[in-house]
Amino acid sequence: MARSWLIFLCLSFILLSANIEADASHCSIKGFPLVRNISELPQDNYGREGLAHITVAGSILHGMKEIEVWLQTFSPGTRTPIHRHSCEEIFIVLKGSGTLYLASSSHEKHPGKPQEHFFFANSTFHIPVNDAHQVWNTNENEDLQMLVVISRPPVKVFIYEDWSMPHTAAKLKFPYFWDEQCLQSPVKDEL
Amino acid sequence: MARSWLIFLCLSFILLSANIEADASHCSIKGFPLVRNISELPQDNYGREGLAHITVAGSILHGMKEIEVWLQTFSPGTRTPIHRHSCEEIFIVLKGSGTLYLASSSHEKHPGKPQEHFFFANSTFHIPVNDAHQVWNTNENEDLQMLVVISRPPVKVFIYEDWSMPHTAAKLKFPYFWDEQCLQSPVKDEL
Repeated sequence: MARSWLIFLCLSFILLSANIEADASHCSIKGFPLVRNISELPQDNYGREGLAHITVAGSILHGMKEIEVWLQTFSPGTRTPIHRHSCEEIFIVLKGSGTLYLASSSHEKHPGKPQEHFFFANSTFHIPVNDAHQVWNTNENEDLQMLVVISRPPVKVFIYEDWSMPHTAAKLKFPYFWDEQCLQSPVKDEL
Repeated sequence: MARSWLIFLCLSFILLSANIEADASHCSIKGFPLVRNISELPQDNYGREGLAHITVAGSILHGMKEIEVWLQTFSPGTRTPIHRHSCEEIFIVLKGSGTLYLASSSHEKHPGKPQEHFFFANSTFHIPVNDAHQVWNTNENEDLQMLVVISRPPVKVFIYEDWSMPHTAAKLKFPYFWDEQCLQSPVKDEL
């Protein structure tokens, strides 16, 4: 009986060690080959229903310092929060269509009523630094798939509850959803 | 007869003015809508046979300061020069396949024999800052199409004649081929 327990404990220890190692390698840049098959990269919704996110080349996973690329898919009706970030951002729309809500009013006290910009497959647009915006799959019949490029990774996002919320009340979400697992240490807010 | 000449001169003047205006607007960020159809953006080989280059979102044309995205197609057998740049660069391979030649030896006096990395559709890879490299469509049967993301635009490229050329002898090409038309003013070399 004592021997069975010892074997059980040993096995548990081995499995636990393997698991810790797997988690660590998932967050380490060392295990990644230079050329990576995007289809084999980790994909998750990171707690947001209708989202599929892949970090194609990133700060935390791949050691990028100045640029980061995501592949994101939004199911019909899903959207980003209203948010801003002090980095540049370029979208390349691969499939589907949607609406960009953009408030170019970072010099005002709150975003205010946003302008609506329709976008479509094979289109591109970019978000000026610190402008509040929201990307919405407003096409009821099709997934929206986009490549997203940002500067200054990892991204630091300020989230608004609505368009009338003051800029100073927007809440910092850092690390952002897909960076949480591998970036636990808090860093100083840049503002 | 004199009247005909006058009409001819007026027409020439009008056409010339329109042409000058068209050239100016081609290089101005003011004329571009926020959402742009990538299929309608200017595409050119910029004097390099077998290349089709589109600046999807760029420093000079679209006012980007930190990131720039290109869509490039290389016909079978065509390639970039051997070169380096002091920016980060991410490739996303949309179609075709090829070989990346990469010499991770910026601390040596010259690049030396590069490592060969095969890449394929739906793969991604990035180039470390200042590492000499060459991207080659080594697939004889298919075009190679890639999205290319760089930091620190507009790109400043140092070109090597071969892998044994000293880093200090590599020749600065700035503005680069696709930036020449709209960026005439020389800037100070950063090295």
